[in-house]
Amino acid sequence: MLYLYTPYQREAWLDALRAALPDVTVAAWPDPVKVDAVRYLAAWRPPEHFFAQFPALKAVFTLGAGVDRFVERNDLASHVAIVRLTDAGMVAQMAEYVLYGVLRFQRDFDLYAAQQHGHHWLQHAPRSAAQTRVTVLGLGEIGGVVATRLATLGYVVSGWSRGRRALEGVACHEGLTALEALLEQTDILVNLLPSTPRTRSLLDGPRLSRLPAGAAIIHAGRGDQLDLDALVLLLDADRLRGAVLDVFPEEPLPPDHPLWRHPKVLMTPHVAATTLIVPAAQQIADKLAALHAGGQVAGLVDREQYY
Amino acid sequence: MLYLYTPYQREAWLDALRAALPDVTVAAWPDPVKVDAVRYLAAWRPPEHFFAQFPALKAVFTLGAGVDRFVERNDLASHVAIVRLTDAGMVAQMAEYVLYGVLRFQRDFDLYAAQQHGHHWLQHAPRSAAQTRVTVLGLGEIGGVVATRLATLGYVVSGWSRGRRALEGVACHEGLTALEALLEQTDILVNLLPSTPRTRSLLDGPRLSRLPAGAAIIHAGRGDQLDLDALVLLLDADRLRGAVLDVFPEEPLPPDHPLWRHPKVLMTPHVAATTLIVPAAQQIADKLAALHAGGQVAGLVDREQYY
Repeated sequence: MLYLYTPYQREAWLDALRAALPDVTVAAWPDPVKVDAVRYLAAWRPPEHFFAQFPALKAVFTLGAGVDRFVERNDLASHVAIVRLTDAGMVAQMAEYVLYGVLRFQRDFDLYAAQQHGHHWLQHAPRSAAQTRVTVLGLGEIGGVVATRLATLGYVVSGWSRGRRALEGVACHEGLTALEALLEQTDILVNLLPSTPRTRSLLDGPRLSRLPAGAAIIHAGRGDQLDLDALVLLLDADRLRGAVLDVFPEEPLPPDHPLWRHPKVLMTPHVAATTLIVPAAQQIADKLAALHAGGQVAGLVDREQYY
Repeated sequence: MLYLYTPYQREAWLDALRAALPDVTVAAWPDPVKVDAVRYLAAWRPPEHFFAQFPALKAVFTLGAGVDRFVERNDLASHVAIVRLTDAGMVAQMAEYVLYGVLRFQRDFDLYAAQQHGHHWLQHAPRSAAQTRVTVLGLGEIGGVVATRLATLGYVVSGWSRGRRALEGVACHEGLTALEALLEQTDILVNLLPSTPRTRSLLDGPRLSRLPAGAAIIHAGRGDQLDLDALVLLLDADRLRGAVLDVFPEEPLPPDHPLWRHPKVLMTPHVAATTLIVPAAQQIADKLAALHAGGQVAGLVDREQYY
């Protein structure tokens, strides 16, 4: 049977999983369950020790793309497969989100919003996509599509990832030394990296300082990668132009956090690419059937790589 | 010779036209000129009676795409050709501008901006491009490209124009009766119409009221087409969700106009698609050479049609 744990939209997930798995028993915490009978879990942010109670567990399906909170647990035996969602509508959403952020800075919508606030009519000379250098950090399923789509729209796109990648129309780079040189050639930095021990605190003060004066940041990776204090210092010093932020060290961001009212920051509540329940439930059903039949599935997590 | 009149960036236009026309004498108002020698004018918003002083005038090249202010003058003899700019970088700019506006409403960036103002963390369910009906008014050189590009990105796109048009992926409509039915099926209305006697006041209160509750408007046609009072009433009554406005009845919009501080309005100072001087000057040079040789040019204005 499949047992579900989620703090968000429990009923919608339960309905969708039952519809997608007509031949499988599906229940959801806190409904009682025979722990011996649970072979599969679908889960998001379960409490500590939750996984340890299921002796026959074969696989955990995550309800999102980020798996750092699963890989780092010590109640999940190494023989239990962790299977993450692949796409399920998230790629298209992220491409839209990033494009909105890129257009905001390329086309001066941030400046015009400030001018509107001051009732000030002033035209700025246009900058074309071909005059705008965008660097995408993270070239996996999501970042790779975002980078190539921006290239198709005429932007000068560079990409950076841990391993070597090749993407049409995108100048791909790898390694920390390459990153520092790349930041110096970036007008708009787009962070889509997963959270891993190697990406944590990657965007610290020294690296952010390598961006040219007037550069902007779109941050939709994970909240533990960007040094917010350094970001605010650089924004306040007019070294950086602005930031679009979707992820934060603490979510929800507390109402008294000073970021909420920073005039150069556009904030969204972790919605750049959200899980669409119906296609995600169908994907979990398909992967469960494949695993059950002894087959391969996409999104099987390598715990060393964190993705 | 070519004589230039422009209230904006006179030196930049003069330099660009001289560079593009090395074999033609180019001068600019208010420099003195032998009026008999002027065959060609390049002009934007010249004063009344300006055109009447040039007896040998063959053609006027406009420095923008909108020609209503030329067609309606009585100092421009009917044998003088009016030639407008075609594209010169404006199409790509308009596509970017409209896409930003569409993403703003589709992806709830307007709601998130209001929430940021109130320090309020709340996620809204995503709406995909395929669930978003966009209607583009005006399917000429600019609107046609904007509509097809939106269709390529997955939006459900309808188009409306005076004459019959056919565009791939776009449901094309024509005529006032069709417009009223179309408005009822529109989530985001994009106005890119030229200013003509038939489009003036087209978006009045009764027509705006046909939009479904929660619809939004992107207005980048001309300032005389949209009834701003009706728009504000519908926004304040929560019938319409929001508006992105680039053009206004009076430009610059006076600093004390209440629109500046309307929370559901995003305003830009007529920058959706601005003329890029260097490619525009080259285009004028090419068209002047073609006219001089007795050839055809694109953008020859039909004074009945206003475009």
